Amino acid sequence: MSKQVAVILSGCGVQDGAEIYETTLTLLRLDQLGIGYRCFAPDIVQHHVIDHRHGEPVPDEARNALTESARLARGEISELAELDPQAFDAVILPGGFGVAKTLSDFAVAGSDMQVLDAVAAPLVAFHEARKPIGLMCIAPVLVPRLFGEGIAVTIGHDPAVSGAISAMGGLHRGCKVDDIVVDFEHRIVTTPAYMLAERISEAASGIFKLVDRIDELIDR
Amino acid sequence: MSKQVAVILSGCGVQDGAEIYETTLTLLRLDQLGIGYRCFAPDIVQHHVIDHRHGEPVPDEARNALTESARLARGEISELAELDPQAFDAVILPGGFGVAKTLSDFAVAGSDMQVLDAVAAPLVAFHEARKPIGLMCIAPVLVPRLFGEGIAVTIGHDPAVSGAISAMGGLHRGCKVDDIVVDFEHRIVTTPAYMLAERISEAASGIFKLVDRIDELIDR
Repeated sequence: MSKQVAVILSGCGVQDGAEIYETTLTLLRLDQLGIGYRCFAPDIVQHHVIDHRHGEPVPDEARNALTESARLARGEISELAELDPQAFDAVILPGGFGVAKTLSDFAVAGSDMQVLDAVAAPLVAFHEARKPIGLMCIAPVLVPRLFGEGIAVTIGHDPAVSGAISAMGGLHRGCKVDDIVVDFEHRIVTTPAYMLAERISEAASGIFKLVDRIDELIDR
Repeated sequence: MSKQVAVILSGCGVQDGAEIYETTLTLLRLDQLGIGYRCFAPDIVQHHVIDHRHGEPVPDEARNALTESARLARGEISELAELDPQAFDAVILPGGFGVAKTLSDFAVAGSDMQVLDAVAAPLVAFHEARKPIGLMCIAPVLVPRLFGEGIAVTIGHDPAVSGAISAMGGLHRGCKVDDIVVDFEHRIVTTPAYMLAERISEAASGIFKLVDRIDELIDR
């Protein structure tokens, strides 16, 4: 039986959901390495819907994070409540504003952020079982709130976001777009991805490194 | 100035728009090769909206193909009417049911299919200028209707679809998921992608070959 990785999504589109390229590149690398995966998303209404052409919220439109994430998973997705951490070797969170607006309220609350219980519970279970956790783009902001102080992560070098990570007790490390930060003690791997990437090949370099390191960290 | 490729999208999601992985992998390979690209989509209402979790149409919901495609292009997209074939060296169409439902009516009309004028006009201009054209998944069905008889293409080996291509005067060649069919005379490159792919790495193999061949075929 191959290694199995859970991937947690938050919609379909960088402005109000999971970042599409980050998710696709994560799944590509997992599959290239022969690692099985399953996508999960919470069955809740997204914080809002953004018109990605103009960058503005669409009034009176509501979309469900699980239903939209199903687009990104070609229908092969389960409700997040069904994620059993015992059935997976690791978990990865792509970024996108869905992480900061729907899975948490970081986009509005900053370092006072709360993480959705449905998201926090499985992630804490993975961490307590010492299973590797990969987070990219904005998703590393969840780390200090969920797993405690002094854990090294990166979101690139954005001053406001890295400052918020520090304010929550996290240890922010500056990182280039094509590299990763690894906290070996806590088995947490992070990469800036579209916090920094200006080209899809740049994002791919860091994301492929993250997935490769997650693969190495899985105990089998 | 680097080579420039136009990519025509039809929404965001395999069941009612452009196939997300096919699009992302196309853009990744173009960027890895140092080729510039721009995404385009028609500013029209999609044929319908499919709930990708359950595979059923959503009653009373309408989405615009350009607005949804903007998700897949991270906002970097133009209306298809603005596509000037003289400004690009080649054009690529990812698949997804958007090609067969919104860009054309192949999904309902089969070999009696009509192609949207807004899509046909720029594609015919690329073809008449002898610029390379790449099409994947279901998109090769457009070839015999747009460019005439006797052009070799593939959609894998689906009997109904390859039969419709033959009925329209096309020359269907069977092809494995990780390979391409090239009609050198007409400079048209096709690959089955998710007509056959069961894994994202399989789709990537054929798509990367298609983009590499388009790169080679561009006259500079």
